[in-house]
Amino acid sequence: MTQNADQYRVRKEPYYRAVQDEIELYRAGYEARIPMMLKGPTGCGKSRFVEHMAWKLNRPLITIACNEDMTASDLVGRYLLDKDGTRWQDGPLTVAARIGAICYLDEIVEARQDTIVVIHPLTDHRRVLPLEKKGELVEAHPDFQIVISYNPGYQSLMKDLKQSTKQRFGALDFDYPKPDIEAEIVSHEAGVDKDTAEKLVQIAQKARNLKGHGLDEGLSTRLLVYAGKLIAKGVDARAACTMTLVNPITDDVDMRDALDTVVKTFF
Amino acid sequence: MTQNADQYRVRKEPYYRAVQDEIELYRAGYEARIPMMLKGPTGCGKSRFVEHMAWKLNRPLITIACNEDMTASDLVGRYLLDKDGTRWQDGPLTVAARIGAICYLDEIVEARQDTIVVIHPLTDHRRVLPLEKKGELVEAHPDFQIVISYNPGYQSLMKDLKQSTKQRFGALDFDYPKPDIEAEIVSHEAGVDKDTAEKLVQIAQKARNLKGHGLDEGLSTRLLVYAGKLIAKGVDARAACTMTLVNPITDDVDMRDALDTVVKTFF
Amino acid sequence: MTQNADQYRVRKEPYYRAVQDEIELYRAGYEARIPMMLKGPTGCGKSRFVEHMAWKLNRPLITIACNEDMTASDLVGRYLLDKDGTRWQDGPLTVAARIGAICYLDEIVEARQDTIVVIHPLTDHRRVLPLEKKGELVEAHPDFQIVISYNPGYQSLMKDLKQSTKQRFGALDFDYPKPDIEAEIVSHEAGVDKDTAEKLVQIAQKARNLKGHGLDEGLSTRLLVYAGKLIAKGVDARAACTMTLVNPITDDVDMRDALDTVVKTFF
Amino acid sequence: MTQNADQYRVRKEPYYRAVQDEIELYRAGYEARIPMMLKGPTGCGKSRFVEHMAWKLNRPLITIACNEDMTASDLVGRYLLDKDGTRWQDGPLTVAARIGAICYLDEIVEARQDTIVVIHPLTDHRRVLPLEKKGELVEAHPDFQIVISYNPGYQSLMKDLKQSTKQRFGALDFDYPKPDIEAEIVSHEAGVDKDTAEKLVQIAQKARNLKGHGLDEGLSTRLLVYAGKLIAKGVDARAACTMTLVNPITDDVDMRDALDTVVKTFF
Amino acid sequence: MTQNADQYRVRKEPYYRAVQDEIELYRAGYEARIPMMLKGPTGCGKSRFVEHMAWKLNRPLITIACNEDMTASDLVGRYLLDKDGTRWQDGPLTVAARIGAICYLDEIVEARQDTIVVIHPLTDHRRVLPLEKKGELVEAHPDFQIVISYNPGYQSLMKDLKQSTKQRFGALDFDYPKPDIEAEIVSHEAGVDKDTAEKLVQIAQKARNLKGHGLDEGLSTRLLVYAGKLIAKGVDARAACTMTLVNPITDDVDMRDALDTVVKTFF
Amino acid sequence: MTQNADQYRVRKEPYYRAVQDEIELYRAGYEARIPMMLKGPTGCGKSRFVEHMAWKLNRPLITIACNEDMTASDLVGRYLLDKDGTRWQDGPLTVAARIGAICYLDEIVEARQDTIVVIHPLTDHRRVLPLEKKGELVEAHPDFQIVISYNPGYQSLMKDLKQSTKQRFGALDFDYPKPDIEAEIVSHEAGVDKDTAEKLVQIAQKARNLKGHGLDEGLSTRLLVYAGKLIAKGVDARAACTMTLVNPITDDVDMRDALDTVVKTFF
Repeated sequence: MTQNADQYRVRKEPYYRAVQDEIELYRAGYEARIPMMLKGPTGCGKSRFVEHMAWKLNRPLITIACNEDMTASDLVGRYLLDKDGTRWQDGPLTVAARIGAICYLDEIVEARQDTIVVIHPLTDHRRVLPLEKKGELVEAHPDFQIVISYNPGYQSLMKDLKQSTKQRFGALDFDYPKPDIEAEIVSHEAGVDKDTAEKLVQIAQKARNLKGHGLDEGLSTRLLVYAGKLIAKGVDARAACTMTLVNPITDDVDMRDALDTVVKTFF
Repeated sequence: MTQNADQYRVRKEPYYRAVQDEIELYRAGYEARIPMMLKGPTGCGKSRFVEHMAWKLNRPLITIACNEDMTASDLVGRYLLDKDGTRWQDGPLTVAARIGAICYLDEIVEARQDTIVVIHPLTDHRRVLPLEKKGELVEAHPDFQIVISYNPGYQSLMKDLKQSTKQRFGALDFDYPKPDIEAEIVSHEAGVDKDTAEKLVQIAQKARNLKGHGLDEGLSTRLLVYAGKLIAKGVDARAACTMTLVNPITDDVDMRDALDTVVKTFF
Repeated sequence: MTQNADQYRVRKEPYYRAVQDEIELYRAGYEARIPMMLKGPTGCGKSRFVEHMAWKLNRPLITIACNEDMTASDLVGRYLLDKDGTRWQDGPLTVAARIGAICYLDEIVEARQDTIVVIHPLTDHRRVLPLEKKGELVEAHPDFQIVISYNPGYQSLMKDLKQSTKQRFGALDFDYPKPDIEAEIVSHEAGVDKDTAEKLVQIAQKARNLKGHGLDEGLSTRLLVYAGKLIAKGVDARAACTMTLVNPITDDVDMRDALDTVVKTFF
Repeated sequence: MTQNADQYRVRKEPYYRAVQDEIELYRAGYEARIPMMLKGPTGCGKSRFVEHMAWKLNRPLITIACNEDMTASDLVGRYLLDKDGTRWQDGPLTVAARIGAICYLDEIVEARQDTIVVIHPLTDHRRVLPLEKKGELVEAHPDFQIVISYNPGYQSLMKDLKQSTKQRFGALDFDYPKPDIEAEIVSHEAGVDKDTAEKLVQIAQKARNLKGHGLDEGLSTRLLVYAGKLIAKGVDARAACTMTLVNPITDDVDMRDALDTVVKTFF
Repeated sequence: MTQNADQYRVRKEPYYRAVQDEIELYRAGYEARIPMMLKGPTGCGKSRFVEHMAWKLNRPLITIACNEDMTASDLVGRYLLDKDGTRWQDGPLTVAARIGAICYLDEIVEARQDTIVVIHPLTDHRRVLPLEKKGELVEAHPDFQIVISYNPGYQSLMKDLKQSTKQRFGALDFDYPKPDIEAEIVSHEAGVDKDTAEKLVQIAQKARNLKGHGLDEGLSTRLLVYAGKLIAKGVDARAACTMTLVNPITDDVDMRDALDTVVKTFF
Repeated sequence: MTQNADQYRVRKEPYYRAVQDEIELYRAGYEARIPMMLKGPTGCGKSRFVEHMAWKLNRPLITIACNEDMTASDLVGRYLLDKDGTRWQDGPLTVAARIGAICYLDEIVEARQDTIVVIHPLTDHRRVLPLEKKGELVEAHPDFQIVISYNPGYQSLMKDLKQSTKQRFGALDFDYPKPDIEAEIVSHEAGVDKDTAEKLVQIAQKARNLKGHGLDEGLSTRLLVYAGKLIAKGVDARAACTMTLVNPITDDVDMRDALDTVVKTFF
């Protein structure tokens, strides 16, 4: 076997602050080997959660960042040319199925839904992956599980999962953490004091109210951590917020003014 | 021959609970070597049925998960480069034709209909497959049969079979099983008691009435089995239902409320 | 030469029941080496007719199932990699031109019309095929002829032959056979008695009247043969008709009722 | 040099009946090495004319049937893999430029106009062809000339030559020959007597009046020759005309009646 | 180095008749190594001008005829397979950057603007070309310059240069030469007397007034030279004009009449 | 390792005139390893700024000129064929991640946003790059940072960054420098006296007011430098301005008149 499961081990516990009972529900889903779908906005912690669970369950984790160029061959494998001719190279999905990894398809709606159907035989009672180009039928390792992430805010007529895909998954909802928990996260990740973290979270909450009223998406926890890190480096808090919480997400002059005003209320 | 028919044998009897006379009709169709089309919604048991019939008829089964990237070469075969130059590799359709397998094209409308025309010469009196790139005319093994599955709910102007394809098949209709049979299936598959299974089926029936009134598709039997499995693992029944019967299929807030209310009526 | 004409011989006389003077007209067309176009609906016997004529004229027959993925190279040939480097492999059109076969392009409108123009130099006074990638000009064997099939019902703005293609062919019209002839065919092919065959033909005639009033296409002779075969296997006649004459061609509930009613009139 | 000019010689004089002063004008254009454009409807003799002129001027003739798949590499050349690695293979345009052939791009509007721009440097004062992939600048042989054919009836917003292409050519107009000349051609080519040929031409003239009133294109001389050949084989004149002058060009019932009526007036 | 600068030398002085101060302005632009854009209609002498300047400045000239198929690799280079494996082959842009040539991208709007962005790093202060596939950063030779040609008449929403491309160039406007200069050019190039040349120029001027009133583009100087050459070969002047000034540029009957009338005024 | 970090060093200090506190903010962002987004119009100095910062921070700089043809493989790497078979070649993004370079994705909106998602795992807490085709998970060097440039003026429905991409970056706004600073830059770069530089800047300011009123984009500092260089070569100031500030940016006659009038006010 050309693949080594060890390189996919999550070596140290990733920081994850549970918001509700998501850890227990996921664990039960994993035990029943139900494919899982994590729903929620950009930067709210879905990827971190999967890493945390892979670490907790002690399973290798193979992450695939989905994109529209991704073909079925990129998932499943292909023939490569060697000095002795062609040899087959398993794709990451096949590797995961063989070694019993958790296979995490990140931002699945970015992939063409016509590509995604290759996971179907792995996500029902069959738990197999036909390698049609190779003429092999891979039976998934008993520990193998598929997890996908999905941002409902992106859902559109063109970019939505097919029902025949959706109905293969159990789903957990994610959202921005509650203020106190989010402040705890920002403080821990950015290395700023509680007070600063709380102010950043309050700014985020006000900005999130603008979603749908000029902003396409709420401010992510990740951007709050960026702001905190800059402040921890000694950057002026207002400049840090403009650079991380205002400039990246909008070019609209009025929206920038509104956000800058919010920032000035706190710093 | 590079392909081994044995790996395509269905080794143990797949659980299948007959709903009507579909087993007898299929058997007669197979005996007359009529290509078959299985119509019905997502997750109602079409794939399981084909496996069951392949086991019953003792034929190898080659399943092809259709997708839009699938080319005629993926079905028929292609030249690969070897240390002695190129060598031909049969595709799964060609293998099936040679070894006399049942070739199951799952979710056929996902494939481009222009690709699907390559099956035409195998589905009329000729029963041949011209390998144009290789310059060989494969005559199908006497036991060979093509089966396709088809979800009429997906039927659209863009994604429908051509009449010249449709008129090559006999067709069997599938639907969700009747309540008592479905409860039996859920109980058997998920390992829950009859009472829980019946409640889950009742929830499904109410949800299926919402199809076309906010839901694109009815709740599949598969999701009921998921819910049952989580309950069997000790997960709270309401949480299990939210995770498997509500969250995966809709992000609409009102629809979720409606479904949650249904769940609460039973658990 | 890598191609063997013998494998393209039609070995035994294919059953074909002449409807009018199509055999004589085709023979005269072949003798004048006029390229021929066979027009008519799905499943009315065009492919069978070409096989029959190839057998009668004792010419090899090379059939190409046209599809939208088909490139000029698929028809004409391409370079393959060998242990001594690349070698040229003739495509089926080139093989047919070299060995003097009848080359049958089935369902030509499925191919992109921009691909089809490669047959032009073979279908006028030049009777040559330039292999541009190889730098060779193939002169067609004196016995070579091109035949295409064409379903006028599919004709659309997007999918129609160019006039510069059409005006290279003589054309024969095909339609469903007259009732007595069709019954004879169904009886012969399906192995049912005359009476059953006649009933099936009567059902077909009623269904064909629905073309354009809810059905896209008339019921093909092929489906009648399927129904007959199932009845010959002992399947209940109504179930056999539903499976082969109703379910495959429509999912519309009203249309299915109408067709089922027709079936019940006869069985 | 891997290409042999001899295979592109037109070996015997192609039958061509001059209609006006096109032979003299073409000869003068060739002597001034002006690239030439032949305009006219399908099947009126443009290709035959070029062959005739190549024979008269004693130049090799390389014909390229343009199609939308044609890439710049198909015209110019590409690297092929040999046992010693890649080697360059000239495309037909490059061969023509090297050996001083007349290069005939048939039905040029079928090619994408973005491909056609590769001929530009060969059609102005530079008379060179840059092989960018090979890093060679081919200077055209002094006898080299480019000729293109062009059907103005196909001209559309999507499929028309760019002005920057058009303004590189002198242009000769072609049309169906005058009745007496066309009858002479049909009689000579089909081997029918003058009287039959004249009747066929009269049918064609009536049909050509329907262009734009239900027919997309006039009846070509080629189809008249087909009709004549069938009659010469003993086919009933009416059946021969239906098969070659009516069926190939329209499926419209009224139009077919109108054309059949015309046929019956003469036969 | 596999490329020889000598083959790109312009060996003898190309005939070019200066219209204004374009030679001095270009020379100053070249000395400041400012990338240059030559704007003007088809066939007015832009390509000739670049050749002339390359000769005057004694720089090699590498011309690239832009087309929509052109990829970044066609410009920059690619790996080819050799008997020892792959080897890198510089594309024409890379060659030009290495040897210090003038690189002339002819009809740049034909290229996809997304391809054209690869020239950006060569057209600002960096003067480098990153060969991303090879992992090499080519610094342009001090004598290297990019020149592009551009027909504003083609400018459209779909086919226009990006502002981020435009703002990298100085631009010179070209137009048809003034009558006396154009007559001089036609007389010199076609070998006709002054009087004939003047008549041809007068015809062109009248035709150019029709631009936008039925003609898409004015008559190019190149076509006048064609007409002159035919007249010099003894072709009747009216026939020569029809063949070169009327037929190539329009199929509209009224427009042709108008142009023919203009021709008859002078010949 | 096949890549040498040294070739990516910026060898001498690039001239950069700070406009505000952008140097300090960028430095803090780099220290916190926050991915950075530089926003601003064409030719205002974003690329120069990155070079300057790479020099100041003493990091290798790998620049990628984004274009629509760019695939994930162009960024990440691919297998190449060697005499011993295929070998992996890192793409520029992978090289940058391994050697700890600043990776600058210039004009990121030119790339398809579906390609850009491959940078996501490098721009959150994971700082890894999965090489799916190779089966390797690259952990970014601690010094690695991603910087992108972005022209908000190009922002459109079709060409805008996804929110899930935007929310991974801190952002700095760039604009044309203030008049005195811009004049200083023009004078330094073009080698003209202060007075000429100031006049050029005043012309630019007037032209920039026309943005949105006939001009798509303001005049870049780069074009002012071009004008200055030509004047420094002795070209008449008006001719120099027409060639660099008027002709390249518009073909509209009225707009050109307006701009020429502005030029004449100063020169």
